[in-house]
Amino acid sequence: MSRLDEAAVSAALRRTPGWERGGGELRRTYRFRDFREALAFVNRVGGLAEAAGHHPDIDICYNTVTLALTTHDAGGLTTKDFELARAIGD
Amino acid sequence: MSRLDEAAVSAALRRTPGWERGGGELRRTYRFRDFREALAFVNRVGGLAEAAGHHPDIDICYNTVTLALTTHDAGGLTTKDFELARAIGD
Repeated sequence: MSRLDEAAVSAALRRTPGWERGGGELRRTYRFRDFREALAFVNRVGGLAEAAGHHPDIDICYNTVTLALTTHDAGGLTTKDFELARAIGD
Repeated sequence: MSRLDEAAVSAALRRTPGWERGGGELRRTYRFRDFREALAFVNRVGGLAEAAGHHPDIDICYNTVTLALTTHDAGGLTTKDFELARAIGD
């Protein structure tokens, strides 16, 4: 799994609506009605992450969850990050 | 629920081993064997938080979970933070 170059990252971003690039990471913030719904979402993301063998950093602040994806082994963004971002969706 | 003064915070910290003060927050980092165990811990913390009506910020980085407690309404640490910290324990 090799790091995507600039052109490939830009193309992949266009096919991954809702996600933003921040440094070498793909980031998205989700807001829910309350903590319970936020935690249910985190568990859904956890299932997808385990299935993919790839894990976002997850930050929970009451009803707000921020996910950050990168591929540490590759030193940046790979197709693995974009695939998991699309699987997580809305 | 009013903010604890310096002396009360110091006394409460001594009765809350494993937790550190950082600014107006009480913080602790937990490490687990893998993501699955980290997520199970987060769900346990979530149950305690819902029961207490008080929610830590939760940061999950694969097998590492960092919790940060503060009482926003009081502008700092209150007994609510220390009680939840002790309930979470090890």
